[in-house]
Amino acid sequence: MTLEAIRYRTGSLQILNQLLLPHETVYEEIRSVQDGYEAIKTMKVRGAPAIAIVGCLSLAVELRAGAGGEDPVAFIRESLCHLTSARPTAVNMGRAARELMEFTENESMEKSGDQLKESVIALIEEMLERDVNDNKKIGNYGAQHILSGVPRDSVTILTHCNTGSLATAGYGTALGVVRSLYALGRLKRMYCTETRPYNQGARLTAYEAVSEGFPATLITDSMAAIAMREKGITAVVVGADRVVANGDTANKVGTYQLAILAKHHGIPFYVAAPSTSCDLSLESGRDIVIEERPAVELTSINGVPVAAPGIEVWNPAFDVTPHQLITGGIITELGVFLPSELQAALTGRLTAL
Amino acid sequence: MTLEAIRYRTGSLQILNQLLLPHETVYEEIRSVQDGYEAIKTMKVRGAPAIAIVGCLSLAVELRAGAGGEDPVAFIRESLCHLTSARPTAVNMGRAARELMEFTENESMEKSGDQLKESVIALIEEMLERDVNDNKKIGNYGAQHILSGVPRDSVTILTHCNTGSLATAGYGTALGVVRSLYALGRLKRMYCTETRPYNQGARLTAYEAVSEGFPATLITDSMAAIAMREKGITAVVVGADRVVANGDTANKVGTYQLAILAKHHGIPFYVAAPSTSCDLSLESGRDIVIEERPAVELTSINGVPVAAPGIEVWNPAFDVTPHQLITGGIITELGVFLPSELQAALTGRLTAL
Repeated sequence: MTLEAIRYRTGSLQILNQLLLPHETVYEEIRSVQDGYEAIKTMKVRGAPAIAIVGCLSLAVELRAGAGGEDPVAFIRESLCHLTSARPTAVNMGRAARELMEFTENESMEKSGDQLKESVIALIEEMLERDVNDNKKIGNYGAQHILSGVPRDSVTILTHCNTGSLATAGYGTALGVVRSLYALGRLKRMYCTETRPYNQGARLTAYEAVSEGFPATLITDSMAAIAMREKGITAVVVGADRVVANGDTANKVGTYQLAILAKHHGIPFYVAAPSTSCDLSLESGRDIVIEERPAVELTSINGVPVAAPGIEVWNPAFDVTPHQLITGGIITELGVFLPSELQAALTGRLTAL
Repeated sequence: MTLEAIRYRTGSLQILNQLLLPHETVYEEIRSVQDGYEAIKTMKVRGAPAIAIVGCLSLAVELRAGAGGEDPVAFIRESLCHLTSARPTAVNMGRAARELMEFTENESMEKSGDQLKESVIALIEEMLERDVNDNKKIGNYGAQHILSGVPRDSVTILTHCNTGSLATAGYGTALGVVRSLYALGRLKRMYCTETRPYNQGARLTAYEAVSEGFPATLITDSMAAIAMREKGITAVVVGADRVVANGDTANKVGTYQLAILAKHHGIPFYVAAPSTSCDLSLESGRDIVIEERPAVELTSINGVPVAAPGIEVWNPAFDVTPHQLITGGIITELGVFLPSELQAALTGRLTAL
């Protein structure tokens, strides 16, 4: 069984309500931009790539149902503004909105009414297909790269946070690599960290693993080193919030220490990310500002307090892994690159391995 | 204000009910061996040294109240067997019981009735005093050793799990070092990890920190590396379940990776433990069997499920830190020793630094 977090057929969109995971599997119908906005705002859908594609698809569905009337350009512009405002920090929605708006304005020179709407819907459907295909390429490139070191054996992968179907348009990035290994019959086992404080590993990655039938084991973040020593981990593969020009990578907090632990144990450490997550405008990870989140995420779970009242809390949402620790490589839809090769590869000056 | 987890005055014993922490601070009267047994069995008191001392003190209180009648030796033997059976894996209770029984049998050659009881009560009170004094020595030796590297500055300490008043007869081991630094006016800040899966850091260490007024910050286990990079950690200090002859140390899971991270960041890593936690009968950490605990500790919190149903779990209770990573030293009541010096120091062939 393949987990479908986003079910789209022309004219119809359903999303898996992630607020009810992992205990209930409920799909909800998205009939309009407002439904899409609400789903993003209330975090029924999360993960920057997934937010962007659900937002755009909600627009496609409403356009197909006849919205936009005689002035589709104004309707599309207003809709994209509204969708972008639902979670302003998720950059992918903003990037998708700019691409769609530019396209809409160009097309409106030649087309209008239903013809224009059809073009925009077609582009959104292309974006969905492209995102999923890019993830599949990431999965395959990553799997081949990892397997090149172990010609016959099955492999054991350690991953962090959630980078699967639930966080992307489908298939996943780091979890896409695991998916490809599994499809090739070469996945011995996946270890996933619970990923405190928000437990994306325990709730979402574990849910995907159970749904797909991966052989998978949940551990706490504190058990990563002993797992590396005792469980024969072949490679660590994580996702990325942002990869900058020198290869330094911002990702869910805890990634940095996994990279140190992997190096200590001589285990290759990979980052899996589409080229759209690479930001060549920043030179190094020192330029990335670390977002600090509310204490309550750490001091209570499902509304139940779990820490001593009155204790101060530090809750950085992510950390930056220096490129020197990314020893396996950066897996993109263009191929697997060393951090030092990334910039040239993304600007077309280097071809994939 | 100093946190008293065990309130003992001759003839009277109260313990802080740890099941209600950190949300309620309730002391319960222990009037008999049966009360002591129940408190240990139901985990109102936890931590191997604390279990041992509460067990023995419950016997002292019941003896003082007149129990044991004309045959105190039989009563003491029966009581110690009962107390030891409450948590058979906590070795300290067994060791204390053997010491007390041997003493009782020797004393009974010369004394009987109330005279014998008085001697046994006096020994138990001595054991309490000795444990607390040993912890104070650990605290002072550790603080001096850490401060010797930074003549004038205040220091920032990272610790793991709970090793304070709540786990010992009083004062604490690793947390005792923090307490000594604070008493000297040299503690800038303590960082404590929440210590998944059982959250002893978030619940108990944070509670002690708030009670004592330490400047303290709670982080998740996954934030240790970024804290080391961003927060100027001076030293990492942890406790020990068992230190073996070559200095390899078994302690709460997550300790091993803290030691790797400390080494990566050039931060000294200390183990604080009384000599009674050192087991010279084992050559190296390879001989220590890792206890695996039930999945439910990890998949639910306070009875509320937090992980995807059906996911497999690995839940080792502790890990072993190789002696090479204990770069600061092993802090005992006899002084601070390098792992390579430990055996000679404990067998009297080396004096404290």
